[in-house]
Amino acid sequence: MIFKAIGVIRTPFKDYRDMPIQPVAAAGVKGTVEVFREYRPGLKDLNGFSHVILLYHFHLSRGFSLRVVPFMDTRPRGLFSTRAPKRPNPIGLSVVRLFKVEDGALYVENVDILDGTPLLDIKPYVPEFDSTARIRLGWLESAKKKAPKAKSDGRFG
Amino acid sequence: MIFKAIGVIRTPFKDYRDMPIQPVAAAGVKGTVEVFREYRPGLKDLNGFSHVILLYHFHLSRGFSLRVVPFMDTRPRGLFSTRAPKRPNPIGLSVVRLFKVEDGALYVENVDILDGTPLLDIKPYVPEFDSTARIRLGWLESAKKKAPKAKSDGRFG
Repeated sequence: MIFKAIGVIRTPFKDYRDMPIQPVAAAGVKGTVEVFREYRPGLKDLNGFSHVILLYHFHLSRGFSLRVVPFMDTRPRGLFSTRAPKRPNPIGLSVVRLFKVEDGALYVENVDILDGTPLLDIKPYVPEFDSTARIRLGWLESAKKKAPKAKSDGRFG
Repeated sequence: MIFKAIGVIRTPFKDYRDMPIQPVAAAGVKGTVEVFREYRPGLKDLNGFSHVILLYHFHLSRGFSLRVVPFMDTRPRGLFSTRAPKRPNPIGLSVVRLFKVEDGALYVENVDILDGTPLLDIKPYVPEFDSTARIRLGWLESAKKKAPKAKSDGRFG
């Protein structure tokens, strides 16, 4: 299947190194999501939402490995139990805070995304759809406490 | 960019009509996610997670419209403020409960997905990454109450 960019994500992060690895670690970091002109009519009604889900292409990822040592751990883990960008289909997902939609761009906060990343889709974030109670987190249970401070170190570039 | 299926999702829903439109409306509905052999080593460590995010291809969707009347509303809305399957990049996203990983398959619950849907990616669901406080829901604020009972009616097939 062939997918194409519908826009581009602008952030302060020019390089994988020193980039926050998750939105919670990117608290307050501002970015813009520029949607190409032809898709802008689809942005109508987004203004009322406080958060959106961005799907995007990890465009600098090359190849993948089914076992990876995540940023927040020291042992190799199964790829699908991680958010590592080198995936068979290198699609990234971030929940970001939306504070304005204007002139075909979304002004967002909490971006853990590389500058210039191709946008694939925007979906409304709806807790009733997307979040659930009684969560178990496997290997991330202890590692997640590190997320707010964790930075990328280039290993997934 | 070219993406390819890494597996296939099996559910009781053979047709868009009468399918639940969101995981909350599919509470208790069981399905399996069959991962192709070559990707199975990447499933390691998923067993400890209670929920996963599935990304998949809305493979029966043809074309898209930037204004849609959602299942839960009566007025046309901007496409990106909805979860309608006819999108420029027809990628679906569902958070499902994971209760077993065995022989290369994920046994999941709360599936709002059509049988035979091509799987694109599996990501661990982590509330610290994916859910947030103080949410506003725009047009969905009043409509969301209908989600647990809402069914698809074929209009997006």
